[in-house]
Amino acid sequence: MNLMEVSHSDMQSDYCEADRPAHPGIFPTCESGKSDHHPPELFVDFPVSVVLPAGGTGERTGLQTPKQFCSFLGRPLISYTIQAFERVSWIQHIVVVVAKEKMDLMMDTIQSFRHRKVRVVPGGSTRHRSICNGVLALGEREEERPKVVIIHDAVRPFVEEDFLYKIAMAAKELGAAGAIRPLVSTVIATTSEGYLDHSLERAKYRASEMPQGFTYDVIYQAYKRCTESDFEFGTECLHLALQYCGTNAKLIEGPPTLWKVTYKRDLAAAESIIKESLSRSACVITGGLAQAASLAEELQKASLDVELAVVPDLKGDNARYLFKEWNFIHVSGSRSPLTEVEAVLVALQEENRALLHPVVVIWVRLSSTDELSISGRVAEPAAITDLASRAKIRNILLYGIQLHQSKDAGRWEGSVSRVADIASALIRERSPALVGQLLQA
Amino acid sequence: MNLMEVSHSDMQSDYCEADRPAHPGIFPTCESGKSDHHPPELFVDFPVSVVLPAGGTGERTGLQTPKQFCSFLGRPLISYTIQAFERVSWIQHIVVVVAKEKMDLMMDTIQSFRHRKVRVVPGGSTRHRSICNGVLALGEREEERPKVVIIHDAVRPFVEEDFLYKIAMAAKELGAAGAIRPLVSTVIATTSEGYLDHSLERAKYRASEMPQGFTYDVIYQAYKRCTESDFEFGTECLHLALQYCGTNAKLIEGPPTLWKVTYKRDLAAAESIIKESLSRSACVITGGLAQAASLAEELQKASLDVELAVVPDLKGDNARYLFKEWNFIHVSGSRSPLTEVEAVLVALQEENRALLHPVVVIWVRLSSTDELSISGRVAEPAAITDLASRAKIRNILLYGIQLHQSKDAGRWEGSVSRVADIASALIRERSPALVGQLLQA
Repeated sequence: MNLMEVSHSDMQSDYCEADRPAHPGIFPTCESGKSDHHPPELFVDFPVSVVLPAGGTGERTGLQTPKQFCSFLGRPLISYTIQAFERVSWIQHIVVVVAKEKMDLMMDTIQSFRHRKVRVVPGGSTRHRSICNGVLALGEREEERPKVVIIHDAVRPFVEEDFLYKIAMAAKELGAAGAIRPLVSTVIATTSEGYLDHSLERAKYRASEMPQGFTYDVIYQAYKRCTESDFEFGTECLHLALQYCGTNAKLIEGPPTLWKVTYKRDLAAAESIIKESLSRSACVITGGLAQAASLAEELQKASLDVELAVVPDLKGDNARYLFKEWNFIHVSGSRSPLTEVEAVLVALQEENRALLHPVVVIWVRLSSTDELSISGRVAEPAAITDLASRAKIRNILLYGIQLHQSKDAGRWEGSVSRVADIASALIRERSPALVGQLLQA
Repeated sequence: MNLMEVSHSDMQSDYCEADRPAHPGIFPTCESGKSDHHPPELFVDFPVSVVLPAGGTGERTGLQTPKQFCSFLGRPLISYTIQAFERVSWIQHIVVVVAKEKMDLMMDTIQSFRHRKVRVVPGGSTRHRSICNGVLALGEREEERPKVVIIHDAVRPFVEEDFLYKIAMAAKELGAAGAIRPLVSTVIATTSEGYLDHSLERAKYRASEMPQGFTYDVIYQAYKRCTESDFEFGTECLHLALQYCGTNAKLIEGPPTLWKVTYKRDLAAAESIIKESLSRSACVITGGLAQAASLAEELQKASLDVELAVVPDLKGDNARYLFKEWNFIHVSGSRSPLTEVEAVLVALQEENRALLHPVVVIWVRLSSTDELSISGRVAEPAAITDLASRAKIRNILLYGIQLHQSKDAGRWEGSVSRVADIASALIRERSPALVGQLLQA
């Protein structure tokens, strides 16, 4: 090659796929009782159960809280992972394996967030010992023994049903299956003195990720036959299945969202994915007000980066908006009583909509130009502060936006665009410190 | 091993080190002209220059903008990476290698953010061809040829001087050195049919990361001698140094912050690290007001999660707060004119403090209970909205907080604590949509 060659560039083999979950609404409410994204073709006609090793004590990491118990919008990471399996109709039992001293905390978490299908068992001194405990717990009763066991990490909360389906089907057919991802960095072998020995050809290798699936028989026999050294130093279940059962696992490339929350930066990334998944849509309630309906229409045209649905109220068929991942924008006239907003809060509370994550309610108060002319700006009723404080306890975040109507088309357009910007920011950031504020558009 | 063994658990070999940069103030202002964290022992007495391959076009990633040009708080990622090298006094030249069609964009970026030491050269068709172009550009003039070349990715913005020092020194001594990290996942070899072939013993391998350092001679000869196939398919410079110069690189474990921004989630993680680094401290300006000084004292006691410095003004020696990563909380009495805040904005603007990232200024307006009794809540002067709009154009984010003084100790304490919460949230979230609001504490 000519050292001086300079040519068109496309040089890095980077992966930069979007790693948002494939489905919107990844956190359907517990109450809905069934998965919302369960296409009929994903039918599994054999029993599948799950082992979730969640035993890290955090002692070696220096963190006070092990990652699986770190809180995201008021809920520990492990609860998100449990939810990901719980919503899959064909998964029967979920065994969570935790360190003995975390058993109480885990039981509290299950109770607080009303998880079903879950059993908690104490962990062992290593990863393999813990997973093994979970597998044995699933097999205790002959009649409940699953055909396939899925093993997954507590700190990989964004696993989707369609991928679990692929793993379960391949595991049933071939005995073992596991998720893989392309390597991001070159892998190198080091000498004992800390020098480069050789580098691996990246294309031939993959990162082994979770979930993995095994027939109960394969994983049971693998643990029964493996050595003390495997239990002590091993980390790879696929390796045990190969070495002790002769089962070459099927490897299936998973989405980037399967990554393991490992470093502090991963906590920020996970929070961002969770917030994004909760910020995709807002239901605008107009109260039948003509002005409100026209504002909603203009918001739809404006740059609000969430999907909008517009309804007069949440009665009858519209009550369906209470059951999904909607945020709410309640528009009212300056003379409308705050009790209208309160009714929305009560409805959300009755449906227990804020059990799993905070819900955002934005009260947009239209004020007439007459009012504006009297005092320059209209002072908000102190009532919204109190209402917001009470709602916050129930995990509902109430904010207010004051919108001054104007006959000047340019000014009005500017105000609507500010409402869109402010509402987007409030929905996305979900800041508890700002509840009860009446912002000016 | 007894399958029924259940013992105390500490099972996962997770890494969860904090990955914030080691030094606070990772983004000193361009104007300061020298690095703030350059302990005298990090003295490098030979010429060191840098090649930053930044040629990915994003075509293969499906993103419209290649990651290195993605914007964080109004500035492209590549600018953060350049800044990380620019602030190191012993680094002479930085050659950025970009795709031909991005040359103009890159030149604009350098101009907008006033980068120095930088030269832009066009990339080649692969990673190695691009890096090679950069190395050749550094060697064009005999008298400017560096002793050591550091190669780093444009999408790893958080590299620190102390680590660069280690790489440069080891490269000079041994010919080549590179950053490594422990593997997060097990690496497995796959069969051509997509089955597990074998898994690697994790302890013997490492992920090869950046930066890497080479003597000019080693990297030049490596590229001169390597094959067309290396140029086309290879990705690892350490491998070329070993194969063509017989140089076994010294491997040095780097901090987790060296990770490569690869997936969409990494953008969120990077933004979070940048925001955190900008949210560590606030300078409270009291205007000499006794009430303001006592509020500052109480804020220091409250749960404000940023470090506070309290000064009467920014004159004389206190002007030093204008030059570092401080945010500002300006406290004023209800009768103080808004021009006091305006003076702070003007001072920031004169020092060009918001060139590299937005600066937060929070105006806390103390109002007396008398005012409160008249109208329930005090309406803000519309002036803050206008002032904030003008400041925003200059990358200064101005927010207001209205604080009602109260003789009731409990109520006052509650208000101060709300100021602390709101100020923390505003500084951390840095939301452009909320500038100009006067929030109620």
